[in-house]
Amino acid sequence: MDEEEKYTNAEEQLLYLQQRLDDDDTEALSALFNELDAWDIARLLESFPAKTRNLLWAYIPETLLGEVLASVDEDIRADYVEDLSVSDIENLVRGLDAQDVAEVLEVADEDVKTTVYASLDDNIRAQVENLHAYEEDVVGRYMDPETVNVKQGVSLEAVQRYIRIHHLLDEESQQIMVTDKDKRLLGTVTLIDLIKQPQEAIVDEFMDDFFTLNDQMKISDAATLLRSKELPFAPVCDSDGLLVGQLNTADVLEITQDDADMTLKHMSGVSDEEEVFTPIVRSAKSRGIWLGINLMTAFLAAFVIGQFEAVLDQIVALAILMPVVASMGGIAGSQTLTVVIRGLALGQLAGNNKRWLYNKELWVGMSNGLVWALVVGAISYLWFGEMLITLVITLAIFINMSLANLSGVLIPLILKRLSIDPALSGAVILTTVTDVVGFLSFLGLATVIIL
Amino acid sequence: MDEEEKYTNAEEQLLYLQQRLDDDDTEALSALFNELDAWDIARLLESFPAKTRNLLWAYIPETLLGEVLASVDEDIRADYVEDLSVSDIENLVRGLDAQDVAEVLEVADEDVKTTVYASLDDNIRAQVENLHAYEEDVVGRYMDPETVNVKQGVSLEAVQRYIRIHHLLDEESQQIMVTDKDKRLLGTVTLIDLIKQPQEAIVDEFMDDFFTLNDQMKISDAATLLRSKELPFAPVCDSDGLLVGQLNTADVLEITQDDADMTLKHMSGVSDEEEVFTPIVRSAKSRGIWLGINLMTAFLAAFVIGQFEAVLDQIVALAILMPVVASMGGIAGSQTLTVVIRGLALGQLAGNNKRWLYNKELWVGMSNGLVWALVVGAISYLWFGEMLITLVITLAIFINMSLANLSGVLIPLILKRLSIDPALSGAVILTTVTDVVGFLSFLGLATVIIL
Repeated sequence: MDEEEKYTNAEEQLLYLQQRLDDDDTEALSALFNELDAWDIARLLESFPAKTRNLLWAYIPETLLGEVLASVDEDIRADYVEDLSVSDIENLVRGLDAQDVAEVLEVADEDVKTTVYASLDDNIRAQVENLHAYEEDVVGRYMDPETVNVKQGVSLEAVQRYIRIHHLLDEESQQIMVTDKDKRLLGTVTLIDLIKQPQEAIVDEFMDDFFTLNDQMKISDAATLLRSKELPFAPVCDSDGLLVGQLNTADVLEITQDDADMTLKHMSGVSDEEEVFTPIVRSAKSRGIWLGINLMTAFLAAFVIGQFEAVLDQIVALAILMPVVASMGGIAGSQTLTVVIRGLALGQLAGNNKRWLYNKELWVGMSNGLVWALVVGAISYLWFGEMLITLVITLAIFINMSLANLSGVLIPLILKRLSIDPALSGAVILTTVTDVVGFLSFLGLATVIIL
Repeated sequence: MDEEEKYTNAEEQLLYLQQRLDDDDTEALSALFNELDAWDIARLLESFPAKTRNLLWAYIPETLLGEVLASVDEDIRADYVEDLSVSDIENLVRGLDAQDVAEVLEVADEDVKTTVYASLDDNIRAQVENLHAYEEDVVGRYMDPETVNVKQGVSLEAVQRYIRIHHLLDEESQQIMVTDKDKRLLGTVTLIDLIKQPQEAIVDEFMDDFFTLNDQMKISDAATLLRSKELPFAPVCDSDGLLVGQLNTADVLEITQDDADMTLKHMSGVSDEEEVFTPIVRSAKSRGIWLGINLMTAFLAAFVIGQFEAVLDQIVALAILMPVVASMGGIAGSQTLTVVIRGLALGQLAGNNKRWLYNKELWVGMSNGLVWALVVGAISYLWFGEMLITLVITLAIFINMSLANLSGVLIPLILKRLSIDPALSGAVILTTVTDVVGFLSFLGLATVIIL
């Protein structure tokens, strides 16, 4: 039976591995790991808690160890590297490209790093040091420093011969760079044109309009750009306009994924690094911080309620209905917040558009607010049969939902202006606003109208 | 000045466009749209409400109209197509590849579709009909049906010549397919090897281990696979093993993005299609449904509180502290939910791993529950100075946070077994559980201990 058919998706592959682990079937485990590529193995390792993950290390074919290590999540890579000897690491990184070596050494201690550096090829070492010299979140850190460069005026045939003689092109190559003698980029020629066009023609004729990235650009902005242009790669130049490498789709894919994931995690109060199999203590600590921040806002809401002891003491129905007001405002606000945060991430909000958006959200908030305020009012009347309570909750829901939608626009735009990630604190601030506005309007109106 | 420098990111480009719109500078608008590629234009259109968007249509160079239309969000595409005449659409789709034509016609009325079909090249029409025959969410619908196929045993040089003579390879080609006479896939050869290897060698020598996708596979599963393997593309075969097309990274990039976006939107009660510039009425309607569902759960919580009127009537401090119990449980639960939903999406949860996860979340929930229960207890004591209230809230927070974390694992796993998207209803169910458990334990304990 063909390998692809044994498990058609990631989950079945994982299940197969688990069953072999349970049976303690070391032969089948070795066989499985010998069939898989480095990416598959990395993903499987990420699907186990630390104990099992360490046990599985022994089954990885020696030739794949380096690639696997470069492919797993950073946290897991750091755990493995901590357990490996310096000579193990030296063996591992032999044969890896500069990007992979950089990823492995990034998580190593300074002294290990220095020793391993010394064991590297001069060429690779220079490239790795160059990558490490960039900040963690810029294009230069993620680019492939190896590009295939040719001069203008040569024929396609000559380029092909040059590539064959010098064994150029690696598995991620997509384009040939045409540069002048200073390594200034003049254009790019696709491998496709290199093959399909008349071989006696010169490269200049097939140079594409090219789009370059600056090596100091934020990697998440670069990912958004490549994604929106659906480019498979882009040349990277330094601030002098000299070609320094290229950024490939494969790397952007992962960053795109991470970006959207991060928004989701931030909005739920989970740290970037947390995965399903993050150890208990690490998870508990990082989540604890968010719980603490939330606690402050929860007590702020409680404090607001506390100001209305008098009315609560007299009308217990208010205490019963309070959560409905807060909850409807919270949901309405976070609907808006989510849409606005995604719009910001995609660069869709600037200038006049904002005015349109405020207008839209106010209308959506008021129309949904009106509809659901009337529904809540009707249910409350049926439940308690009190006209005044009905009036108070209807007004409070309408006010809270309208303001919730406006806050859903206002809060992320303000946070962005303050250079704070809107996903990170937007949800907590929004809930605080909708809770406070909700309780204030509901209990305040009750005090004025009923007492 | 170079175009790239006028606006270094999407937002600046958008701002530039807006300023020209405000100045009513039609010349600059035409000039801008002539400089941009179809992807840029599509992204800009997505950044405006419908009215301005329709106005901008006139500035798009005629040669790009088709590509732009194929690139914008489905909702927007449908709006444009509705306004276009049949002959406009016929002109638009001329010169587009089958994938793009399929995307444009997908949103057209049946009679428009039939008329435009008739105007297509036979070859393109057959491909488009083939794409439309697939379900909306399977690989076959997203694949590029054009591949370059050669027989085994031919030399690399012959392949190159064959490509040049027949003008093969389009801008997304990455690989040559080696097939037998029945079109059964034997292997793939990269353009890289086609260039760098000795030209007299035969293709068979450089066939890669290949990984194929089935044309009926769910597109989101395929995206996850390509992503985890970091493949730039994969051949697509039908259930008889015959080659029918290839799936490219560029398309997967968008789907990856959509997938993570969708989780975020579903968790916040926003529909898949909603973007910042979705019209007011459409937004209000689709969000309204979620608000209605939330309302039911909010009244369920209110009903639970209502069962404890007696104790609330006597001790108003309980009403004041209630939201703290619900809020801490809600946050703890949604932290867990987010991590578990991402783990499920990545195929990391199967078999034994689940047991480990329950164990982890119970411990995280209990340890964070204990810490924050004591903090809340201390603050409550300082505030109200009542030992019994302090005892009640401390216990309630501990119980609610521990159960919240367990529910954060249990709910998505149950939903998945029932084939319901955990992101879609997980958050609403979880909040219901944490509200009900929170109020029940807090007010229930108060009734037992204090009354």
